[in-house]
Amino acid sequence: MELKKPYLLFLGDAADALAAKVAQGIKTWRPEYCVGQFRLENCNADCGLSDMTIQEAVAAGAKTLVIGVANRGGIISDEWINILVEALEAGMDLASGLHNKLTDIPALVECAEKNGRSLFDVRYPTQAYPVANGKKRAGKRLLTVGTDCSVGKMYTSLAIEKEMHARGIDADFRATGQTGILISGNGVSADCVVADFISGAIETISPENKPDHWDVIEGQGSLFHASFAGVTTGLIHGSQADALVLCHEPTRQHMRGLPEYALPEIDVCMETNLATARLTNPDVQFVGVSVNTSALDEDAAMSYMARLEEQIGLPVIDPFRQGVGRIVDRLAALS
Amino acid sequence: MELKKPYLLFLGDAADALAAKVAQGIKTWRPEYCVGQFRLENCNADCGLSDMTIQEAVAAGAKTLVIGVANRGGIISDEWINILVEALEAGMDLASGLHNKLTDIPALVECAEKNGRSLFDVRYPTQAYPVANGKKRAGKRLLTVGTDCSVGKMYTSLAIEKEMHARGIDADFRATGQTGILISGNGVSADCVVADFISGAIETISPENKPDHWDVIEGQGSLFHASFAGVTTGLIHGSQADALVLCHEPTRQHMRGLPEYALPEIDVCMETNLATARLTNPDVQFVGVSVNTSALDEDAAMSYMARLEEQIGLPVIDPFRQGVGRIVDRLAALS
Repeated sequence: MELKKPYLLFLGDAADALAAKVAQGIKTWRPEYCVGQFRLENCNADCGLSDMTIQEAVAAGAKTLVIGVANRGGIISDEWINILVEALEAGMDLASGLHNKLTDIPALVECAEKNGRSLFDVRYPTQAYPVANGKKRAGKRLLTVGTDCSVGKMYTSLAIEKEMHARGIDADFRATGQTGILISGNGVSADCVVADFISGAIETISPENKPDHWDVIEGQGSLFHASFAGVTTGLIHGSQADALVLCHEPTRQHMRGLPEYALPEIDVCMETNLATARLTNPDVQFVGVSVNTSALDEDAAMSYMARLEEQIGLPVIDPFRQGVGRIVDRLAALS
Repeated sequence: MELKKPYLLFLGDAADALAAKVAQGIKTWRPEYCVGQFRLENCNADCGLSDMTIQEAVAAGAKTLVIGVANRGGIISDEWINILVEALEAGMDLASGLHNKLTDIPALVECAEKNGRSLFDVRYPTQAYPVANGKKRAGKRLLTVGTDCSVGKMYTSLAIEKEMHARGIDADFRATGQTGILISGNGVSADCVVADFISGAIETISPENKPDHWDVIEGQGSLFHASFAGVTTGLIHGSQADALVLCHEPTRQHMRGLPEYALPEIDVCMETNLATARLTNPDVQFVGVSVNTSALDEDAAMSYMARLEEQIGLPVIDPFRQGVGRIVDRLAALS
C-alpha cells in the first residue's frame, strides 16, 4: 500500500481543531504532500492550507483525498459521501484511518470501481504478512517506546526523522498506526494485524537497507500496558532496534484506560524494554527520553527534565520545547 | 462458540497415526465426547474407537463431525466433501482446525444453510473480543508457558486438568489453539486474534469464577520466540495467572523455525515470565517444570530432571512418564 501524493485534506464538519488533528499532523510533518484543504460550511478547524473545491484540488494535482477528521459517532454522513463520490469521479483515490471502513459503503465501492480509483482504509491491513524470521538485516533502526499509550511516540519519531534529514542523514519514518500511515503514505497499523504476524509486519515495513540508513519506527502501546503489551512486544522484536527512545508524559495518573494500573518507574521501564529488545538485537541501547511536558509550565517542565537527565545519564528533552537534536547527536556514536 | 457433543471423529485418509494426532488428542483427553471414528478405505490411522458410517454415528447420538486429520497439501478433497455433505444432511455440525476453511467451500456452506447446521473453523475467531481491562477477577488460574513453541504446553495443561479432576478440584482446561479447542469444544485460537485483542480474548475465555475454581490455561509460543512473543505476552497478561508451569524440550537445538536463536536458560526464562506475569498478578509463582523427555531414554531423562530439580527447587516432571501429581500438590499452598 502506498498512497498517491499529493493530498487534498478533508476536514469536513470538524467540530474543533482537535477533531481535525489527523489533517493537522499531515500538514505539520508533510506540508509538501498537501495541495489544499476541503471544508464544509460548519467546519471549525483550519490547517492553514488553501480552501479548495474538488475540481480546484484536481487541477492543482491532488491524487488522494485524505479524511483528516474524526467523524462524530462513527457515522460517515450522507453529506460526506456526496463529496467523496465527487472526489472519486474527479480522479482522486480516498484514504481514511477511521474505524468505519470506506469499503463498507456501497456507493463509494461502486463509484471507485466504475472510475478505476482506490479506497484505502489504512487501519486495516490488506496484505498478508509473513511470520517474522528474526534474521539480522542491514541498516540502522531507531524505535520509540513508551511508559504508556499516547505519550508522543509518533510525534517524537517524526521529529527525529526531520532532524536527521536536516543533518543530511538518510532516514525514513516507518508508520505503525493509522495517523502515521496517512502522514507518510505507507506503513502498517500494528495493532490491527493478526497476532501471529505482528513482528513479521514490522520486519516487512522496515526491510534491509543501506548500512548507514536509519529507519525511525513509530512505537505503539507500552510493555506496561495490560491491554496492549503484546503488540508492543511484537513491534520491539520485529524492529530489531539499534536505538530506543523512551517517550513519557509525566502528569499521567494511571495507565491510559486502566485506572488500577500505575505508570512504571522510568528506570524499570527502560530496563524492561532493553531486555525485550535484546532478544533480536543484543546491542540495543537507549539514546534518550522524550517527554511530553505540555501539561507543565516552563519552569516545572525544565526542572522535571533536568532531574530525570541527572538520574538516567541520557538526554531528556521535550521535542516540542527543545527539539530532538541532543538525541540525534548520540546516534553518531552508534553508527 | 461451543461445539455440540458428542463427536464423530473423521480420520479420513490419514497417511499415518501422526496425521490423525488431532483425533487422537480428542480420544485421549475427552473419550466421553467420542461416539466413534470414520475412516476412508486408505486410512492408516486408528484411534481405537468403533468405526461408524455417518448414519450409525447419528443413530449413536453424534452431533458434530470433527475433522481430526491434517489433510495433504492443504486441499480438502472431493472425496472428503461428499462425506461432509452426508454428515450435514444427516444432522451433524462440522468442526475443523485446518488452515483452509470449511466456510470457503460453497458446497458445504449451501448444504449447512439448507439443513440448519453450523460449520466451525475453530482456528478463526468469529466473535469480536473486547480490549482487555486488566481487572482482577475471582477464581484461580494456572498458565503453561514455554522455553519454545511446541514443547508440550497443551499436553501438560490437559494432564493437570485431569489430575485436578481426579482429586475433586473444580477445574477447566481453557484452550488457546485449534487442537485444544477441538478437544474441549470451546476456546480461542490466540494467535489468530487481531493484535489489539489478545489479552482481551484470554480474559473472555477465562472469566470470573468461584474463588476455589481453577482455570488451566493452555499457553502459546514463548517470550523468547522472535516470531511469536507478542502472542505470548498478551496471553500471559490476559490470564492473570496465579501459577505458572514452564514447559521444555531438552534436546531442541534452536528455537523452532529460527536457526539463529538459541533456547533461553531455564532460570532466565522463568524470571522473564514472572516479570511479565507480575504486571497483571503480582503474586504469580512458578509451581513446576514439565519436560518433554520423549527424545531421551529413561536414565537420561530421569537424571536430566533430577539435576534441573536440584537447580531450581521446584518439581520437575515429564507428564507422560510420571504424571503431574507433584505439580498439582504445590497448588494447595496457593489456594
